[in-house]
Amino acid sequence: MQTDIEIAQAAEVWPIQKIAQAAGIEEHELAPYGYDKAKINLDSQVKRSPDLGKLILVTSINPTPAGEGKSTVTVGLADALAMAGKKTMIALREPSLGPVMGLKGGATGGGQSQVVPMADINLHFTGDFHALTSAHDTLAALLDNSLQQGNPLNIDPRRIIWKRVLDINDRALRNTVIGMGGPKSGVPRTDGFDITVASELMAILTLSTSLMDLKARIKKIVVAYTYDEEPVTVDDLGVAGALTVILKDAINPNLVQTLAHTPAIIHGGPFANIAQGTNSILATKTALQLADYAVTEAGFGADLGGEKFLDVKVPLLGKTPDTIVIVATVRALKHHGGVALANLNEENLTALATGLENLGQHLAAMQRYGVPVLVAINQFTADTPAEMQLIKDYVQEHGAQAYVANVWGQGGAGAQELAQAVIDTTAKESDFKPLYQAQDSVEDKINAIVQTIYGGAGFELSAQAQRQLAEFQRRGWDKLPIIMAKTQYSLSDDAKQLARPKNFTIHIREFIPKLGAGFLVALTGSILTMPGLPKHPAALDIDIDENGRITGLF
Amino acid sequence: MQTDIEIAQAAEVWPIQKIAQAAGIEEHELAPYGYDKAKINLDSQVKRSPDLGKLILVTSINPTPAGEGKSTVTVGLADALAMAGKKTMIALREPSLGPVMGLKGGATGGGQSQVVPMADINLHFTGDFHALTSAHDTLAALLDNSLQQGNPLNIDPRRIIWKRVLDINDRALRNTVIGMGGPKSGVPRTDGFDITVASELMAILTLSTSLMDLKARIKKIVVAYTYDEEPVTVDDLGVAGALTVILKDAINPNLVQTLAHTPAIIHGGPFANIAQGTNSILATKTALQLADYAVTEAGFGADLGGEKFLDVKVPLLGKTPDTIVIVATVRALKHHGGVALANLNEENLTALATGLENLGQHLAAMQRYGVPVLVAINQFTADTPAEMQLIKDYVQEHGAQAYVANVWGQGGAGAQELAQAVIDTTAKESDFKPLYQAQDSVEDKINAIVQTIYGGAGFELSAQAQRQLAEFQRRGWDKLPIIMAKTQYSLSDDAKQLARPKNFTIHIREFIPKLGAGFLVALTGSILTMPGLPKHPAALDIDIDENGRITGLF
Repeated sequence: MQTDIEIAQAAEVWPIQKIAQAAGIEEHELAPYGYDKAKINLDSQVKRSPDLGKLILVTSINPTPAGEGKSTVTVGLADALAMAGKKTMIALREPSLGPVMGLKGGATGGGQSQVVPMADINLHFTGDFHALTSAHDTLAALLDNSLQQGNPLNIDPRRIIWKRVLDINDRALRNTVIGMGGPKSGVPRTDGFDITVASELMAILTLSTSLMDLKARIKKIVVAYTYDEEPVTVDDLGVAGALTVILKDAINPNLVQTLAHTPAIIHGGPFANIAQGTNSILATKTALQLADYAVTEAGFGADLGGEKFLDVKVPLLGKTPDTIVIVATVRALKHHGGVALANLNEENLTALATGLENLGQHLAAMQRYGVPVLVAINQFTADTPAEMQLIKDYVQEHGAQAYVANVWGQGGAGAQELAQAVIDTTAKESDFKPLYQAQDSVEDKINAIVQTIYGGAGFELSAQAQRQLAEFQRRGWDKLPIIMAKTQYSLSDDAKQLARPKNFTIHIREFIPKLGAGFLVALTGSILTMPGLPKHPAALDIDIDENGRITGLF
Repeated sequence: MQTDIEIAQAAEVWPIQKIAQAAGIEEHELAPYGYDKAKINLDSQVKRSPDLGKLILVTSINPTPAGEGKSTVTVGLADALAMAGKKTMIALREPSLGPVMGLKGGATGGGQSQVVPMADINLHFTGDFHALTSAHDTLAALLDNSLQQGNPLNIDPRRIIWKRVLDINDRALRNTVIGMGGPKSGVPRTDGFDITVASELMAILTLSTSLMDLKARIKKIVVAYTYDEEPVTVDDLGVAGALTVILKDAINPNLVQTLAHTPAIIHGGPFANIAQGTNSILATKTALQLADYAVTEAGFGADLGGEKFLDVKVPLLGKTPDTIVIVATVRALKHHGGVALANLNEENLTALATGLENLGQHLAAMQRYGVPVLVAINQFTADTPAEMQLIKDYVQEHGAQAYVANVWGQGGAGAQELAQAVIDTTAKESDFKPLYQAQDSVEDKINAIVQTIYGGAGFELSAQAQRQLAEFQRRGWDKLPIIMAKTQYSLSDDAKQLARPKNFTIHIREFIPKLGAGFLVALTGSILTMPGLPKHPAALDIDIDENGRITGLF
């Protein structure tokens, strides 16, 4: 059986100019990066027609090690819509290099449903993440330099909240001490590194609507507090212009293609467990302006990326989804039902029934927004007819329809029925109901998320989080939306509680104010903003030969 | 008066395909990065004819805050050669983003003698430095992960020599403690960051002759020692393949153009005060294969980049320079002669005579290699006829000719006389005599550099350096060439000793073995491998407007 990268390497890839032309992007609006990648000029896209296509949001159940294939379904569904004669574009996130070298593969789909060039997208792509890392760490260096050069802003080195970032899974950098080595080498203080996708600059880049909006948001970032506990911003440091210059190309969306030559815009990559988890406003808007059907996805399960898409991105995008597709697999649902990874190829209707409760919670949560919801069963070869029927029946009992899609094996041809259902559903009017209003209190917002989306009982705040909340109220920061930073594996904040836990409490240990991005992050449970590498990192199996052929990238 | 970036922004820039075609690079050999940048496919270049053009090496006196303009002269000379009807290419280094945001401008020349797109080249260019940062820090994370996962290689955490890097001037990261925060967040140990240009991977990338040579060199990198004090290499960690994958595009040389449309290959950027300081072997070779005249430069003064070009790069390049051009300015020589920056616009023949001794030492050092040497006086408006004549007379007394070049104001038109001298000189046979042989002892090599190139008395080793030298002899590492890491401002290791100090001793405090690059670095004086930011960083003055127009980048 061919691996994903072997399929991608064997594919006939069209020159990016041909893809752009078919999508309605003119040559002067395109900056090619090699043969098959390009950036789309921002000026050109913002001048386009305000008539928008239909928006399809793909989300999923809580991920498991068994695999769900959300990106694969997103790509396969888009290819199927294109096969059905609909003008379609994909809007995806860019993969982070850290996890590619660590545990999981990239975010480029799989089998016959991939975006290409697979290896390039998973490595440096057009350099957006590197630009973000540079801008983020340049700001950190400028901040430490301000301390070093007489500290004119009266910054308290114990109250600096702007950490450093690298696009690498590096647990040894989570907690550091810097500025050692004497008076010529900085001011000693504790510090730490997050992964680049967790940077507020990543959130800002993906939420900005123009280069000047990007600069205005950067100015508002709070990096530290003074000895008098007053916030210090990037504007105070006077370096928003320089940081915007570093990000001037990164703000432009990237164009690639699927194996079936459907145009795909891939831009921005915030994780959904620690940030808003969807591609950029500009990418989604470009797809909506150019195509009749824009298929996008949000990271991890509907509880994380789905909720954030609907509550944080939609208000800025100015467009609500016309259909939401929840991806599930027989394997993953059985794993939620207690089946060990080794036994997932055996039919087990009892475990499947238990695991289906996870889908049930996500289905109810998404239906609550007033947008039509469909379920896509991403088919694996070992799935039995009885198992697939059980899912269909369950979904129907809960007011929706489930469709089997064999996108890994057949690409768009394996998702014809799902595509037709999407076409029919998006033709209907939807009536979007937001989960909360901006003026709601932080507590009310969190309660709405925990109770309605997670199915939990409530939440509790650590002593630190309580102090922070009082501070935010005092400063008037409490009207911002909430980004819950929570494990992706469970509806609760305990990664081990699979399926549909009940009566659980979400534990908020700390808030991080992100005023440039325009939201408050709530760190729950033991969620980390810098991953580690596993015992056998993927890097050990990656190689390249004298012809430039890469192996071991998946 | 227009700034450099204003001149660059107003320039008529040709599409990179047109530049490539004129240079003899076919379209299928080119991967464009936007309108005016491209990478040249490595496969195509290594298959070219072995007939090489003439090689002109541009170097300089010890730099001063007064400015020398080595890159400006390199570009102006190449444009002048092109105007004289000679097929010419430039081979330069890529600028480092850290200093661009800090103190100095980029390395793209100035005035009418620039390479463009100026801002892009000074920012991310085609992402080579970012790829190097990623590869370097991925290796560091994999190393710390090996400690975390049971330490199967028996690595002594106190004897890890592979630090981390960022392409940022960040003194607070010079000395760090990492792995804090308990057993899930790594093994505590001391660490530190260098600037990316100091990475051994940068040295390797620029010295490699193929992708497989790159991988073979990466395998040899020594990252740490075991508790038994045995070296641990990248090959032991098993990740050379993954690191090579991360660098697969960075190894391909980049093509841009001068304001006069002379093709310029800009690739690799090791600093000359802490590494070999010249662009890549592949870039220089490509220029030599495509053009009749390849004009290249080496970083800082002839004592640093010049010496390293001749002693480290030439043996791997397989080609010696046909002419060496030493750049000097009246201003800089007067500053060497003791004139303060504020008074440099006043004629001062006495100070100039003192400062000329700096040029004298470099001239003698370069003449020693048996290659014809010329001096280029990079003209500034305040230079007086008497001052220029004094330099010409001094140079003639020392067996060479000096030519005034007004390349900032006039581009290639201002360097016609210099270009004709270069054409005449390169037509002669040269007889290259290396400074030392591989089998010479480390002490003999260093003595040759200190006495012949710097004009010093000798050197002394710290206790640590003495121990290291004994270790290197035991391990058989003592036959490698030496990279002296020394201040660029003085011939000695004391930045304050200008002009031509005598009877000085070079103090070597530590060696760093770089077995992948294939050399030993000798850290002298108080040289640092991570710069800091000044009191008023350049970043404070950089901005961008709603039309994407950048200001303050110089």
